[in-house]
Amino acid sequence: MRVTLRDIATRAGVTKATVSYAMSGKPNVSADMRVRILDIARELGYQPNVTARALSVGRAPTLALMVENIANPFYPEFALAVERAARERGHFLLICNTDADPDIGRTYLRRIAGQLSEGIVAMAGHLRIDDIAAVNQSGVPVVVCMWEEPEIAPPAPCVTVDFAHAAAIAAEHLLSLGHRRIGVLVDGDAHELHHQRRLGGFMHTMHAAGIDIDASHIVRAPDTIASGKQAARALLATAPSLTAIFATNDLLALGALRAAHEMRIKIPQQLSVIGITDIRAASESYPALTSVAVQTREVAAHAIDLLLGLIDGTIPVAPPPLIITPSASQLMVRESTAPPRRSRNSE
Amino acid sequence: MRVTLRDIATRAGVTKATVSYAMSGKPNVSADMRVRILDIARELGYQPNVTARALSVGRAPTLALMVENIANPFYPEFALAVERAARERGHFLLICNTDADPDIGRTYLRRIAGQLSEGIVAMAGHLRIDDIAAVNQSGVPVVVCMWEEPEIAPPAPCVTVDFAHAAAIAAEHLLSLGHRRIGVLVDGDAHELHHQRRLGGFMHTMHAAGIDIDASHIVRAPDTIASGKQAARALLATAPSLTAIFATNDLLALGALRAAHEMRIKIPQQLSVIGITDIRAASESYPALTSVAVQTREVAAHAIDLLLGLIDGTIPVAPPPLIITPSASQLMVRESTAPPRRSRNSE
Repeated sequence: MRVTLRDIATRAGVTKATVSYAMSGKPNVSADMRVRILDIARELGYQPNVTARALSVGRAPTLALMVENIANPFYPEFALAVERAARERGHFLLICNTDADPDIGRTYLRRIAGQLSEGIVAMAGHLRIDDIAAVNQSGVPVVVCMWEEPEIAPPAPCVTVDFAHAAAIAAEHLLSLGHRRIGVLVDGDAHELHHQRRLGGFMHTMHAAGIDIDASHIVRAPDTIASGKQAARALLATAPSLTAIFATNDLLALGALRAAHEMRIKIPQQLSVIGITDIRAASESYPALTSVAVQTREVAAHAIDLLLGLIDGTIPVAPPPLIITPSASQLMVRESTAPPRRSRNSE
Repeated sequence: MRVTLRDIATRAGVTKATVSYAMSGKPNVSADMRVRILDIARELGYQPNVTARALSVGRAPTLALMVENIANPFYPEFALAVERAARERGHFLLICNTDADPDIGRTYLRRIAGQLSEGIVAMAGHLRIDDIAAVNQSGVPVVVCMWEEPEIAPPAPCVTVDFAHAAAIAAEHLLSLGHRRIGVLVDGDAHELHHQRRLGGFMHTMHAAGIDIDASHIVRAPDTIASGKQAARALLATAPSLTAIFATNDLLALGALRAAHEMRIKIPQQLSVIGITDIRAASESYPALTSVAVQTREVAAHAIDLLLGLIDGTIPVAPPPLIITPSASQLMVRESTAPPRRSRNSE
């Protein structure tokens, strides 16, 4: 049984508040009483809740996380990981949702940097590079997370995942099952391909295996279940010979599962579907989605460590980007992938 | 084409920063230059981005939202609604995730109240009543949201939903379909029933219709898909004659859908399932879940208006709780409910 402040209070014959004051060294407890209470705490083997204690002592150790769209389930899952990593190190995390608006993002960055936080973890896809650089140069460290622009250096120290490798793992899984006619759903819109790195890793692996993906079988769609469904419906209608769909994100893959259901295409007998990220909905979907897990917790922990090091000055400014490589074991094989039927695979 | 600060700067032959300073009345622009820039802005038909402007002018108009578990999809959906309501009124929202730990909650409340925010919207289920009351009495207004303790007055001004009514709507839907043998999944654990009000509203409606729900058919489970699945499996195994399950939350209901799938029970032919809240996953599940929608946006907007009124002093302290009653039209009938089969319904 864990010893609580209440147990100490009972033994000492004082209120819990008095014990709490004594523990935190507040002046409204006499020195004698304080010694007596601390002795009892030692006797009983009291272990303070380090987390709560760290948060309530000293100056405001506030960190901020900027996310693009809190309604997309990946962001809250990542936010939870960052929040826990921060808390384990005794720091607060404020979460700012920018609604994917660069102007809101800029305003948040400035306000946070000026008044609220000592450092910022930024999911930077929707932020202007010069806005991030400006805050970082002003002396409030920014750590960029999950950066995946292939050709632009991140505007601040960066912790990310090797998304090309994650996509290669998905490609290898489909190849090993025997799939050759594969469609691709890529997060993006008419203006921009958000997941170019993932697409590149996938295509590279396919190409190395001698498989050509028809350009018309690569469809871009914004990262929601609804748009994934719509894109997959169109793709499956125009390309009935496809035996598998690779989606660069789980929401698109979950949309493909919905499309297959509506079109009475059996998963995985008639169509395999694989995503990337392994958000919780992947394992909870029907059928459960095969996905390549991204190391949310590792990235979160590295990002917070890096940020605190930059704040304390123990890490020199602007280390090179830290890219966390997923190991092959991150493939989560579930119900949505299987070998193709001969009849669909033969040409 | 929208006129930007850059357009004005080009016309005036100055930098964008100078235009920005002139617009915000900063002293580092001469009076003459300021007049000239404002004239050009008028000429060009410049419309300032009111949202970004409100955020970047004046003192930090920061509000905070405390949520219990950001990984539970209801909270990010509600957070997004609160964040948008705050932003529409020119205010920042910081989101604090307490991980359902009252100690973390207390620390956040104190830190926020002391330094970071002018007011707090709190999802209060996991917070200690005296912690909320203390902050509120210290002059930093707190508005409690989604309160549903049946017998305890909320510790601060409150905006909530009539959850008993929402549950009654679910009950009426099942009754109108002809269901009589109904199981219930309630958010709760061995120590506490979190959704007592919802259970009460459901039971009251059933009782009024002459239907008795067997106490052994009411199962409590924590609010996750996994525990909903487990609880529904146990319930359906011990009570095979049930034709419907009412869950007090959508995650539990989604778990029941998974249990039915695993047990090869057809939805809705052999079992109807209905939840409350209408989180996005309800409409995206397979089969799509019938649910009673809770007015997330209305509650968010009322909460922010109330909080801002309390901060400005235009609303007297501690108005009575505002309870938003769902109208019958909030029932979202989807694929998971239908009349029971005669064979299962007859006794």
